[in-house]
Amino acid sequence: MNTNYTISNYLLERLQEVGISHLFGVPGDYVLDFLDAVMASPLCWVGTCNELNAGYAADGYARMNGIAAAVVTYGVGGLSIINATAGAYAEQVPMIVISGAPPSKRREAGALVHHLVANYQLQLDLFRKVTADAVMITNPDTAPAEIDRVLTTCIQRKLPGYIEIPADMAVTPCRRPAAPLPMPKAASDPVALTRCVSTAAAFFNRSSSPILLAGVELMRHDLGAATLKLVETAEIPFATMLSSKALLPELHPQFIGIYQGAWSRDNVKRQVESSDCVISLGAWKTDLDTGMFSGNLDDRRVISACAGKVAVGGQCFENVQLNDFVEALLPALEPRSYLTSHPTQARELAPPFVARAQTPLAATRLYECIDDYLDDQMVLLVEPGDAFCAAPEFFVEEAENFIIQPYYAAIGFCTPAALGVALARSGKRPVILTGDGALQMTVQEISTLIRQHCPAIMIVVNNDGYLIERKLHEDGMYNDIQMWQYAGLPAVFGNGSDAVRGTRVTTEEELVAALDAARDTSKFHLIEAWLPGRDCSPGLDRLGATFRQQTK
Amino acid sequence: MNTNYTISNYLLERLQEVGISHLFGVPGDYVLDFLDAVMASPLCWVGTCNELNAGYAADGYARMNGIAAAVVTYGVGGLSIINATAGAYAEQVPMIVISGAPPSKRREAGALVHHLVANYQLQLDLFRKVTADAVMITNPDTAPAEIDRVLTTCIQRKLPGYIEIPADMAVTPCRRPAAPLPMPKAASDPVALTRCVSTAAAFFNRSSSPILLAGVELMRHDLGAATLKLVETAEIPFATMLSSKALLPELHPQFIGIYQGAWSRDNVKRQVESSDCVISLGAWKTDLDTGMFSGNLDDRRVISACAGKVAVGGQCFENVQLNDFVEALLPALEPRSYLTSHPTQARELAPPFVARAQTPLAATRLYECIDDYLDDQMVLLVEPGDAFCAAPEFFVEEAENFIIQPYYAAIGFCTPAALGVALARSGKRPVILTGDGALQMTVQEISTLIRQHCPAIMIVVNNDGYLIERKLHEDGMYNDIQMWQYAGLPAVFGNGSDAVRGTRVTTEEELVAALDAARDTSKFHLIEAWLPGRDCSPGLDRLGATFRQQTK
Repeated sequence: MNTNYTISNYLLERLQEVGISHLFGVPGDYVLDFLDAVMASPLCWVGTCNELNAGYAADGYARMNGIAAAVVTYGVGGLSIINATAGAYAEQVPMIVISGAPPSKRREAGALVHHLVANYQLQLDLFRKVTADAVMITNPDTAPAEIDRVLTTCIQRKLPGYIEIPADMAVTPCRRPAAPLPMPKAASDPVALTRCVSTAAAFFNRSSSPILLAGVELMRHDLGAATLKLVETAEIPFATMLSSKALLPELHPQFIGIYQGAWSRDNVKRQVESSDCVISLGAWKTDLDTGMFSGNLDDRRVISACAGKVAVGGQCFENVQLNDFVEALLPALEPRSYLTSHPTQARELAPPFVARAQTPLAATRLYECIDDYLDDQMVLLVEPGDAFCAAPEFFVEEAENFIIQPYYAAIGFCTPAALGVALARSGKRPVILTGDGALQMTVQEISTLIRQHCPAIMIVVNNDGYLIERKLHEDGMYNDIQMWQYAGLPAVFGNGSDAVRGTRVTTEEELVAALDAARDTSKFHLIEAWLPGRDCSPGLDRLGATFRQQTK
Repeated sequence: MNTNYTISNYLLERLQEVGISHLFGVPGDYVLDFLDAVMASPLCWVGTCNELNAGYAADGYARMNGIAAAVVTYGVGGLSIINATAGAYAEQVPMIVISGAPPSKRREAGALVHHLVANYQLQLDLFRKVTADAVMITNPDTAPAEIDRVLTTCIQRKLPGYIEIPADMAVTPCRRPAAPLPMPKAASDPVALTRCVSTAAAFFNRSSSPILLAGVELMRHDLGAATLKLVETAEIPFATMLSSKALLPELHPQFIGIYQGAWSRDNVKRQVESSDCVISLGAWKTDLDTGMFSGNLDDRRVISACAGKVAVGGQCFENVQLNDFVEALLPALEPRSYLTSHPTQARELAPPFVARAQTPLAATRLYECIDDYLDDQMVLLVEPGDAFCAAPEFFVEEAENFIIQPYYAAIGFCTPAALGVALARSGKRPVILTGDGALQMTVQEISTLIRQHCPAIMIVVNNDGYLIERKLHEDGMYNDIQMWQYAGLPAVFGNGSDAVRGTRVTTEEELVAALDAARDTSKFHLIEAWLPGRDCSPGLDRLGATFRQQTK
């Protein structure tokens, strides 16, 4: 046994230090030495069926855990996980990609080794474009500082990073960490901070109908609790967005709903757009977050903090970090019992779902039933497709119990991401709301959910093809897909285990029975919900109408 | 209906002109307008379950057809197919990736639209690094020339290309082709050509034991027939390599076997390495093609033509194209009835396989049986893993009936690639020799093989994990994978169709019975061959021993 302390040991020690307990990935010969060190470490190895899925799993893990890492081999592995890395970059999720590489002597000789594309710099070059920092380890003396730099940058900037370790470097000795990982915080300009907070507070304190719009950056920077304190102390009603749904608990009396431009419920749109002071924190103006840019917010009525900048009524302040702004704003706001005089128009909870006898399943009823079924021990993951459109209406009781990738919007994300969610939150159950097209992308990771004993509930809305594309655009045969026996998948991937259950439901009563059976947390459950005839949520119809109008 | 002639129409007309009849891909909103034009064209749309698989399918198609194209949406699609594109780049396979993109007005506004990673140039920048030519279409006046340029470059250089079409450009009118696609051939320097041919011929004509080593570039440049004429006319024995296996028919009396450095059969190694004139045509010196660089060929005894250069006994000639060299060399060589005086030591055909009663399946017997089973109507595709190591020994009767990706070596390649092979060669049956780990990577494309009525035979060597990794390196738990009911996959993906059959075999008799049943070409057949206990081909044991020795 090698008793030397190696570069692999160093990296693994730092990964544990920043809070990573699980590594996702696929072995390959250039990374086996590193994996040997993983096996000898306290980190838990989670093999996935392919590398793209390892990336999605790590992304899901990072969304719950704050950071994650995935391990792949060179070329075939690295370039398969790059799409997941790009998604993490777009959505600001810190995920470290660790790639094996051919040993240094091969690189130095320019040898034509398997998995090489064109030259030995190529993979590093590609990853530089989809990460905050990327490095190829070539020197044990500089490796510790390089590893520290990548980790620090990713954590601070909430972006993915890339560390390439040639096979020989994985077993090369290096120094141990001399001190805890340096983690200097991104600093605000103190003058700008003071000025923008006083300007914002004055603006707020003279407003009559303030509202807080809580955006996704609050989630990434773990500012949910601070935001909750802010709205409760200052007594401000609040809305969230598609990308920040469930940042705050949705049964909170001050919660008014999801703001999504013209796609919002009427009372949400009215309250947000008529407010004379919208405190918009960490909100991205992406197409799906704004109802295809249909929001109507006048900058003169907005206090906006996002991407290291603050604007108050159009006046800009540079170099102000979101966390500093939220912290400093709280004591400066005057609570004014606003809620007493202007009760928010919270959405009423739907009555409990009761199945109607012998009634074929319809989309609206399916979603009502799922909304009713969810509890605070479940984390809902929703795929692009009808799930994206139906889920904003669900009430998610507990903060952080909702996962969506609404900006990068990769179909197939949720099945592997659920693996990461389940391992990051072992006390909770992932509930995956997916479609038939999305499931087919990454279906094999059902196998890993079963292998890792994740008590997930997967609801496959089988609407016989890419329904969202049929709605966005005149339908074409390219939206048709092969029909599968979806309910048969758990038995095949579970190798006949008792710990899986697959059910196909076509009526309301069958749905309720399947969901009742899924309360058995000792099993992985797949429920195929048969929804033929292009039946969908009102949200998808609205999305389709907007798309068709905009592309006319 | 739009009767205008659009940029989409132009591209589709050119794709047909270069010989493409099928397009592989996945729809997404940014590419739907282009797909509408595809549906209205004579081209056949082949939807796959995900984009990586579309890329592998296109690669398989291009290997048989000379060129292929795949269609994806922006971001999530483009960055999912990039690994397959990199593989095509490494292995010199011309594959055109057509990606939809957000409409120009969004790009010009810098809008944050779904599927965007960081900026609107990013995807183009990434593809520039893994293609011979890449373009974003932004102007209908220049689009025809840009499309022509990408296609011409890819076909000439046998490399992939990239064409990004923003959604609005797909429906923008443009001029029709004024003339057939210009296809200037890469030209040799006539002086260098004449000189190197005469030098090579003189060298050959005074040799006493010449041999021809036929490499993969001959395959890519469609020079199989010319090479066959050369060896037959000059009466030279020939060897192929792993990457060029079945470039020439393997029952040919002059064929001596696969040269793979020290991994070659003894008589092949001896004949090649003791020859006083090795005509090495288009041979790549990759690790797996050379038995981990264990070949022993003295440049002074070699005539080498590769990558646009020729070397004769160490003397170099630049700018000589392989096709020109092969064509000019033929008349310059003096046939000398070499074969009469030096009969080649061809490998004897094995006797017909006869199953032994009640005998558990062993690796060597499995591979003997498959070798015996293959006929000239089957195209064998082999995955990295034991299939890579066992298949070089098989006799492939008819040229081009063998597909391997030995340089990029992506596991999971063959299942989708078989789809491309089946559609490019409708008269032949793909036989996929894969492993359990490789199958799990891209398993969902079984669904598309079934949907497209491809009468494929898939043999899944189930050795309970990543056997090749167990052999290359001290085994670790990371090589364990979830056990599936592999034989149950066809029923699930075929939705219970009669046109599929899944069988698990554990004995020689069961194997023979399953292969007999697979003669029914009306079905897709999956045969799971259970090979526990790390039993493998002698080739894999040899590979493992070399790897372990080299990394000590």
